[in-house]
Amino acid sequence: MTKTSAGNFFEDFRLGQTIRHPTPRTLTAGDVALYTGLFGSRFAVQSSSAFAKAIGYRDAPIDDLLVFHVVFGKSVPDISRNAVANLGYAGGQFLAPVYPGDTLTAVSEVIGLKENSSRKTGVVYVRTRGIKQDGTPVLEYVRWVMVQKRDPAAAPPADHVPRLPTAVDVKLLGAGCPALNVRAYDFDLAGSPYRFAGYQAGEKIDHVAGITVEEAEHQIATRLYQNTAQIHFDQFSAAQSRFNRRLIYGGHAISLARALSFNGLANAFHIAAINGGRHVAPLFAGMTVFAWSEVLAVSELPGRDDVGALRLRTVATKDRPCPDFPYKDGDEYDPAVILDLDYWALIPR
Amino acid sequence: MTKTSAGNFFEDFRLGQTIRHPTPRTLTAGDVALYTGLFGSRFAVQSSSAFAKAIGYRDAPIDDLLVFHVVFGKSVPDISRNAVANLGYAGGQFLAPVYPGDTLTAVSEVIGLKENSSRKTGVVYVRTRGIKQDGTPVLEYVRWVMVQKRDPAAAPPADHVPRLPTAVDVKLLGAGCPALNVRAYDFDLAGSPYRFAGYQAGEKIDHVAGITVEEAEHQIATRLYQNTAQIHFDQFSAAQSRFNRRLIYGGHAISLARALSFNGLANAFHIAAINGGRHVAPLFAGMTVFAWSEVLAVSELPGRDDVGALRLRTVATKDRPCPDFPYKDGDEYDPAVILDLDYWALIPR
Amino acid sequence: MTKTSAGNFFEDFRLGQTIRHPTPRTLTAGDVALYTGLFGSRFAVQSSSAFAKAIGYRDAPIDDLLVFHVVFGKSVPDISRNAVANLGYAGGQFLAPVYPGDTLTAVSEVIGLKENSSRKTGVVYVRTRGIKQDGTPVLEYVRWVMVQKRDPAAAPPADHVPRLPTAVDVKLLGAGCPALNVRAYDFDLAGSPYRFAGYQAGEKIDHVAGITVEEAEHQIATRLYQNTAQIHFDQFSAAQSRFNRRLIYGGHAISLARALSFNGLANAFHIAAINGGRHVAPLFAGMTVFAWSEVLAVSELPGRDDVGALRLRTVATKDRPCPDFPYKDGDEYDPAVILDLDYWALIPR
Repeated sequence: MTKTSAGNFFEDFRLGQTIRHPTPRTLTAGDVALYTGLFGSRFAVQSSSAFAKAIGYRDAPIDDLLVFHVVFGKSVPDISRNAVANLGYAGGQFLAPVYPGDTLTAVSEVIGLKENSSRKTGVVYVRTRGIKQDGTPVLEYVRWVMVQKRDPAAAPPADHVPRLPTAVDVKLLGAGCPALNVRAYDFDLAGSPYRFAGYQAGEKIDHVAGITVEEAEHQIATRLYQNTAQIHFDQFSAAQSRFNRRLIYGGHAISLARALSFNGLANAFHIAAINGGRHVAPLFAGMTVFAWSEVLAVSELPGRDDVGALRLRTVATKDRPCPDFPYKDGDEYDPAVILDLDYWALIPR
Repeated sequence: MTKTSAGNFFEDFRLGQTIRHPTPRTLTAGDVALYTGLFGSRFAVQSSSAFAKAIGYRDAPIDDLLVFHVVFGKSVPDISRNAVANLGYAGGQFLAPVYPGDTLTAVSEVIGLKENSSRKTGVVYVRTRGIKQDGTPVLEYVRWVMVQKRDPAAAPPADHVPRLPTAVDVKLLGAGCPALNVRAYDFDLAGSPYRFAGYQAGEKIDHVAGITVEEAEHQIATRLYQNTAQIHFDQFSAAQSRFNRRLIYGGHAISLARALSFNGLANAFHIAAINGGRHVAPLFAGMTVFAWSEVLAVSELPGRDDVGALRLRTVATKDRPCPDFPYKDGDEYDPAVILDLDYWALIPR
Repeated sequence: MTKTSAGNFFEDFRLGQTIRHPTPRTLTAGDVALYTGLFGSRFAVQSSSAFAKAIGYRDAPIDDLLVFHVVFGKSVPDISRNAVANLGYAGGQFLAPVYPGDTLTAVSEVIGLKENSSRKTGVVYVRTRGIKQDGTPVLEYVRWVMVQKRDPAAAPPADHVPRLPTAVDVKLLGAGCPALNVRAYDFDLAGSPYRFAGYQAGEKIDHVAGITVEEAEHQIATRLYQNTAQIHFDQFSAAQSRFNRRLIYGGHAISLARALSFNGLANAFHIAAINGGRHVAPLFAGMTVFAWSEVLAVSELPGRDDVGALRLRTVATKDRPCPDFPYKDGDEYDPAVILDLDYWALIPR
């Protein structure tokens, strides 16, 4: 009897199944520093405890995406160890600020299953929640992944494809952001004069700069999240795969694009929700990531006059600057596009 | 008169000599985060302060191997700057938990000396102790290294080869682990249902996954320990050496193997002792490390019913998965083996 | 109207202009650990809070150069985004210790402007100050950079070249160092017996060791400082530049040279002032940095008997050990030299 886990295969999942994921994780100022070193993010609220406290946070909150990656990482050994592809995200909500010293755990519920026609794989839909040491939920999101079957002949579960929202309702966006004293928000120090009212639906913003990714960087990042997906770390096995090399964790491109988006969105300091996301093409070490964003919508938040919400589509590319906003030609993505992310960010009014 | 140290040569050591090593080092949450990013370790006790406190630690203790590497690193400028090879370890004991905020210093005693027949080198045996700011010893171990002579004609000291234990006595294993409340140890969250009673001598475990090492990673790790051995950092000089490239610090393979061993040994959370260890072959950047373990023995701890001890041999390989447990063919190591480590780990009963 | 900043061009600056730079930054134990991992510095005061407290610091102060890089990094988006070259430094003074938890902001004043004869570029002189959350200045320095003009036909400002000191006055050197209890300074633990009185003007010290730089390392370092200069990160664009590759941030060589200088200057624990500095030649990944220092002068500090000052020239080279102290042949630098740094360091008496 082996004590090593080979992870779950498609036929191991059951609708309604709940999985508590191993390895609780205390996030600290150390994680924050390493995240800064890996992505160079410059949003003032997360960068400065003095700035964050002045506007109403208890301390500088931990970057929303670092929280996302840590929660996601916990789910990997149970959910996507045998994944062929990470197909999409929906309904992501950031529910409470996370501070250094908080310990996170994660739980997933299987909310959908559908075998593919090949019978070799199936799609698993899970809703994953990240929870603090005191039981406070800090994040939830749905993702769906294509998972291998151990045995193609195994009887599949009945198909069930969940209905997923195309966007998170604006009524749900404020939970992760305390009431802010916007008069104490120093726009000079934050790096831009543009507030909520300065953005309009349809506006496109080129984030200008590019960042090249090295193998050591994405490996350190992904291990920091305790994400165990082998394809990110094991060049010996990757050399025999279709790409011949390690595949960079999709979340790495999200964090790079978010850090680049500071130039144009400096005050959109908090990711409140992830409406949807797609890793359009793989990213490999040595490539340079660029990004641009479109404001899909702007919305006030019910009952709040401190912050408003921008619905943003941030598109990341590889080895392709974005002054002309590359995206799709009909239904086909531009070949340089690697990420298509739809999210709500909060910004002072 | 030069102010730069060239390190000690074989003829500079004297039996019984005590050396206080420079550079005291305060370990922090920053070191813990960087260690996690470099190795991706997932043992719950070290990863979560909430988990650690629930079972009886004051806080999440710092990974035993991080403590080992920092203490080892201090000894390098004095002991092994002019080493040809790091030959072995024995009698390693972890004597007290180390927490963020603790400051470590190190002292070594020369316990053996033996000139080699070539007269160009000799073997130096030292017992090195790591000590906290309040004087508490946290670690001691013996290592022996082959050190160059400055002058082959120099008169050697009298030979003295110390008797070393083949394994640390089980009576000495509990010092680094406080009395635990095992009922509060959440096995689901820790990632495995297997406790002390679930392991048997002779059992072999393939840890399955592999991790590729990059130059930046091992350099960052080894500098974090303030280990100054030039062969790990200086490609200009290494290019003229027999390997033509930088040699990775042997401790890097130990930490990778330990992190990989989580898959199969998730509850063996504390390294109590290092019985012996051998760096069988060099590791270079670009190679992928795999590992497997054999349970050499199981033992209760006198006077304790919270934890038991597993004596483990963990073998690491390069570019060679381990489903068939590669080790030795007669006296010859399998050519893929890089590390043969014999240690005691504690695990809840 | 674009919301992304393209940075300032030469004709955008005005004499006397003051610029508050964005992104306040709280420095933590996480930054300290990552800095140690990147450079391997071993000065006892910065490495050990126990050591630092024993001699009179509130805690282990953050490495002076980490403070410098963070303050410098803030000025990049406003001052040197469109720089062709970073020409020099003068009048750098460290004014107060910085501890984990302190938040830094930066302000620059334009103190000189001079168009070049090509009319395509001009030299901008700025005095940049780093300031703590409570208003305490921690650092100031002058640097001058050659900046592109947006439009060569644009009318230049009147030339004004500021008078700059060739060295910081010794009366100004003690501000960043509290009164020390030198009897509590443990020279064994610090790694060298040499105090102030042990050094003499004219003395040259080879720091012996070399460190090879990897792309991931300098990128992580420079992002840690939130320095956004594209040439350090964007290989896609760099491939089309004259060097075909990313240029390493000049400050990286300064930190490497300083860390190497421990061997020979172990007790020169605090950089009090930067008299001048020149990045003589570019550094690229894969190269190995060596360093040597000359003691240019020694000086007591008025009113203090705890510490004295060494004026040092530290020279860094690439792929060239320094036993023969390579520097200049007449006015020409040795082709291996990359850095010529003139600074004051404090050392116990």
